[in-house]
Amino acid sequence: MIRIGFLGPAGTFSQEAVRVYTKGAPEFIECAYTTVSDVILAVKSGEVDEGMIPVENSLEGAVNETLDIMSEEGEVLIKAEVIIPIRQHLLVKRGIQKHQISKVISHPQAIGQCRKFLKSFLSDANIGLVNSTSEAAKMVAESDGSIAAVGAAAAAGEYELDILQKDIQDRKNNYTRFIIVSLNAETQKTGNDKTSIVFSTEDKPGSLYRILDIFNLWDINMTRIESRPAKKQLGQYIFFIDIEGHIQDRDVSDALTMVKRKTSYYKYLGSYPVYKIEN
Amino acid sequence: MIRIGFLGPAGTFSQEAVRVYTKGAPEFIECAYTTVSDVILAVKSGEVDEGMIPVENSLEGAVNETLDIMSEEGEVLIKAEVIIPIRQHLLVKRGIQKHQISKVISHPQAIGQCRKFLKSFLSDANIGLVNSTSEAAKMVAESDGSIAAVGAAAAAGEYELDILQKDIQDRKNNYTRFIIVSLNAETQKTGNDKTSIVFSTEDKPGSLYRILDIFNLWDINMTRIESRPAKKQLGQYIFFIDIEGHIQDRDVSDALTMVKRKTSYYKYLGSYPVYKIEN
Repeated sequence: MIRIGFLGPAGTFSQEAVRVYTKGAPEFIECAYTTVSDVILAVKSGEVDEGMIPVENSLEGAVNETLDIMSEEGEVLIKAEVIIPIRQHLLVKRGIQKHQISKVISHPQAIGQCRKFLKSFLSDANIGLVNSTSEAAKMVAESDGSIAAVGAAAAAGEYELDILQKDIQDRKNNYTRFIIVSLNAETQKTGNDKTSIVFSTEDKPGSLYRILDIFNLWDINMTRIESRPAKKQLGQYIFFIDIEGHIQDRDVSDALTMVKRKTSYYKYLGSYPVYKIEN
Repeated sequence: MIRIGFLGPAGTFSQEAVRVYTKGAPEFIECAYTTVSDVILAVKSGEVDEGMIPVENSLEGAVNETLDIMSEEGEVLIKAEVIIPIRQHLLVKRGIQKHQISKVISHPQAIGQCRKFLKSFLSDANIGLVNSTSEAAKMVAESDGSIAAVGAAAAAGEYELDILQKDIQDRKNNYTRFIIVSLNAETQKTGNDKTSIVFSTEDKPGSLYRILDIFNLWDINMTRIESRPAKKQLGQYIFFIDIEGHIQDRDVSDALTMVKRKTSYYKYLGSYPVYKIEN
């Protein structure tokens, strides 16, 4: 049996990602955790074999908690990725009408994805932030009906809510990319892979440019760069970079050896197959 | 009189930043708004002359809402920056003791800055997210005392709360950088300036590298790069870059002319003096 941790409770998009990843195979056991950090720590301690955590959304961007903890927790590596479409709905207690709603709650990313809709559809409602879309749905179920939640259809099912308005995200093309992490994950090269690293540059002008120059020299394409504060001083950053290729490719391996030498902090986060979105 | 909008209510770090910026000069009138977007829209409509908004924190990183709206709202430009130290405290209703607290609420960034402290000091407490540290303080004042807030000393004063624990942020060096925006701000070169731009690259391999190459050729130092989703498709980004120098410098102006030609979307966000932190 393979125990897989995810950001719970039941009904989150993380759980949906788990089901896309496992394809419902019976050997997987789903274990819900309260935060991204808890999922990673469960992987690290061996409490679960794998963890499913969100890493970026096409509208709201990077999940900072995921980036920060991936740079801090040494042994945990990425072994795969999954991308799922995100459809947000306005969830209310059974029978509740629009004029009865005085507050809308959800995860900050879900609120962010529906900001324009909420402003026009429920301009007078207060906005409240909670830890997950499912937690929001649960709170609506337990409320007097004056609270609505932004969340997944699965959460409506789980907590017996009505969907008052469907597909309320401000833009189409709302996708979230999840990564599957495990201890010392080693993957085989498939020919269509990507590799993730994190590093901080020396504190000299042009030092990030010199790192990107290495990838340019080796003809390696960078598909993503995210910066996060180094947490030492304002203006110092660490960088998360995804490049095309697998660590077993000679060019990738050589380029990363150079990057490691030219950075003050460096961590390899894993090589894994590029996920193809199913239509 | 100069009307200056900020992220309210009274007692937020944004208000503190306003006071550092205005040095208490009597010609400024402070106007509190509920969200960063509301501040920017008030500047755009002329309701206020200037707006003070947070742009990055040394521990929690970029303020996404600020980046997104700065790229969307054409005429609003940066005219100055202010950096203030952030000291978070655990605020409780008068006379409340540690064992009476079952929940801690605050702005997501404030919670993020104190995650380790909260986990060890109040391991059983639930975490709740609200729109600002001041709103959290206000809710504590109106609660039965079982809720604590993470927030500024000013908020404790404003809502008559006790500071149960001082300086609870997980790391020292907790600073937030704010920008002051106005319509068509034009600043004079001081000799120690920075310039902010936002752009999206053409959808070709190596296109970000080629932009950074322009700065390298002109010997211009990049002090910050942030990426945000382009919101069209997962994997497409826009980039926020700060460089040293003023748009009135010939090299900066020439380099930016090149950048503009080599990008599919480009916006100049302003040139302004580098802020010196007071010790």
